[in-house]
Amino acid sequence: MTVESLLASPAFQMSILLFVALAGYLIAYRINQSAVVGIILAGILVGPSLLGLVTYTDFVSSLASLGAIVLLFTIGLEFQLEEIAKPKYFFIALLGVIIPWIGGFFLAEAFNFDFKAAVFIGTALTATSIAVTANVLREMGKLQTNAARAIIGAAVVDDILALLVLSLSESIVSDTLAFLPIFITVVKAMGFIVLGIVIGKLFLGKLLVRFDNSKVAEKYPESIFIFAMMVAFFYSIAAELVGLSAIVGSFLAGVAFESNRLRGRGSVFKEGAEHLQVIFASIFFISLGVIMDLRVVTWNLLLFVLALTAVAMLTKVLGCGATAKVQGTSWRDSLIIGVGMVPRGEVAMIVSLIGLNQGLIQQDAYSALILMSLLSTVIPPIILRNWLFRERKPEHDPAG
Amino acid sequence: MTVESLLASPAFQMSILLFVALAGYLIAYRINQSAVVGIILAGILVGPSLLGLVTYTDFVSSLASLGAIVLLFTIGLEFQLEEIAKPKYFFIALLGVIIPWIGGFFLAEAFNFDFKAAVFIGTALTATSIAVTANVLREMGKLQTNAARAIIGAAVVDDILALLVLSLSESIVSDTLAFLPIFITVVKAMGFIVLGIVIGKLFLGKLLVRFDNSKVAEKYPESIFIFAMMVAFFYSIAAELVGLSAIVGSFLAGVAFESNRLRGRGSVFKEGAEHLQVIFASIFFISLGVIMDLRVVTWNLLLFVLALTAVAMLTKVLGCGATAKVQGTSWRDSLIIGVGMVPRGEVAMIVSLIGLNQGLIQQDAYSALILMSLLSTVIPPIILRNWLFRERKPEHDPAG
Repeated sequence: MTVESLLASPAFQMSILLFVALAGYLIAYRINQSAVVGIILAGILVGPSLLGLVTYTDFVSSLASLGAIVLLFTIGLEFQLEEIAKPKYFFIALLGVIIPWIGGFFLAEAFNFDFKAAVFIGTALTATSIAVTANVLREMGKLQTNAARAIIGAAVVDDILALLVLSLSESIVSDTLAFLPIFITVVKAMGFIVLGIVIGKLFLGKLLVRFDNSKVAEKYPESIFIFAMMVAFFYSIAAELVGLSAIVGSFLAGVAFESNRLRGRGSVFKEGAEHLQVIFASIFFISLGVIMDLRVVTWNLLLFVLALTAVAMLTKVLGCGATAKVQGTSWRDSLIIGVGMVPRGEVAMIVSLIGLNQGLIQQDAYSALILMSLLSTVIPPIILRNWLFRERKPEHDPAG
Repeated sequence: MTVESLLASPAFQMSILLFVALAGYLIAYRINQSAVVGIILAGILVGPSLLGLVTYTDFVSSLASLGAIVLLFTIGLEFQLEEIAKPKYFFIALLGVIIPWIGGFFLAEAFNFDFKAAVFIGTALTATSIAVTANVLREMGKLQTNAARAIIGAAVVDDILALLVLSLSESIVSDTLAFLPIFITVVKAMGFIVLGIVIGKLFLGKLLVRFDNSKVAEKYPESIFIFAMMVAFFYSIAAELVGLSAIVGSFLAGVAFESNRLRGRGSVFKEGAEHLQVIFASIFFISLGVIMDLRVVTWNLLLFVLALTAVAMLTKVLGCGATAKVQGTSWRDSLIIGVGMVPRGEVAMIVSLIGLNQGLIQQDAYSALILMSLLSTVIPPIILRNWLFRERKPEHDPAG
């Protein structure tokens, strides 16, 4: 085997990626931050910007997308439907989409982007990527707090609303503002979520219980784990099919299985999914760093990036946090919700790529959006860990 | 997202692969066989031969190769070095390589293949693929029997010897029988194994213990799992670099970590590796089925395939089993060792591809070798489960 083919081999790429992940843990430990932040920073370090050791190959991108799906599945397993499907979270999500859209639009106009680009830049600010915040909350053992439930609940709704905004924006810039396609988009997305939960709870949950009690599962206990992961991946595909993020699908699969958590063997697949997640979510976080090429940044662009990031953060804090406050949430929890909704992660990156491909934005706006995604993803975990969840006195969480 | 890009997405491929794996478990249960056999059969069913649902894409082949590596790592974790590194296993491996080589050569000559092709067909019969047998033994809870230790120990040596035979064959057919390159090949392979064990036991094992006691591991317990898997993949790469199978490398990594199994958190990575293995080894077994295109088989070829498979099986049973018997093993254990060494699996497939690419064999011999690999992989687990390990009376295994 030649050295060249070796470098391209999956095993070699895996060993390098895990090495980078390990470096990420060390960085996170050194700077006393969440592992997510450390791993993303390690990704930037080895990515094309600096060392150039890891590039965003098909293999890396495949594993990263699997990682995000598995991550949200394991997070879904922690939640009961009733905890996150509350009307008040809908309003948090709604304002958290509208205000960033408006904010992004006017900032882009102020920086002399044309109308279409400005609409699109606003659009890219709308969707929260829940993967990062959820993992940070879990790392800190805060997943069962009320603020965390609000963040997760709102982030799922947020994804639907952002999809709606994307359709709307595409209509606006193509001067064919049509009601029907947008309506269909939303109905499909909502239909998927409702159907996904109903099928999950009523049919798949029961199938899982039956399968668990079957002789096949008795003989091959690992087959339950395979069954559960298969459902998670099918759900993520179904979500993509209706235009939602794949991770919303796997999250729903996790939620659907939650209440069906089985006595003995049933918890096996949860542990299994978490082990998969350790490896593949790391690769997802590395990929967030690797996708970023800092070399494109000029001083001019930097100013826009900083302003855009500030707007991206403030509009979510305002849109989500203020709504939560109005609903009677405490100041601290409102801030946690606002900051927790800030990360745009891979969702904004995907939207930006759509805009670039459709010619709505150019390379400069694209780079700025990617950088904004990165900064908005790295900063909130730092704020959450060091200020909002800093434990000055023993804290009693109203955990469910 | 279009339906086309969706079908190519990693999540979709994963969901299909896991669905096939699940079908494999059901098949295995129905026909009362090892899960491995069921999953390979499910792979044939969905592969290009019959349904054409799954093709051997880069993605499938990448995940399959990772699966084989993880599988052998988890199997390595079960073994102590002293249990498998015994001179008597060396002789079992030696005869188990020489006799199939000779047998394959004369059979091919009898079927009018030319000299070069006959040398190569013999070569493709030499190496055992340990992944299948080891997993079957594990499924049956027989991994700690003396026969299993002999099979595993001999299979590792077997890989080195087969590598030697491959170098020898290439020299013979190129009429440049040179001592030095062959000598270097063997020294490199032996050097890797010795160094791998020494570094693993003395350096990495201690590093793992230190890491486990570090504050980083205390804060992020999952980082130990990442560390262990990283070492497994590095070892598999190192093995490929010296010309051995990747799985021999990860097996050695597993063996190196065995005696360093840590008290509390240490076992975490073992469970984690096993969970990875459930998903990815399934994909490996599916790929063994998918890689097989039964449509190339003609009646003429079929005769050769059957003869070749018979020779492949008998020569291993004779070479390994008779050697074990001479060493004083019981008849039953000798037969178990002989049959357990039969599976050629992906090793023969890789060797066949080398021969095809170098023009030493043509499409007919290639197809026959691939089919032989498949049959020699599917049949032994059936024999082991139904006859050799059939428990007529309560059995007392001399388990270590």
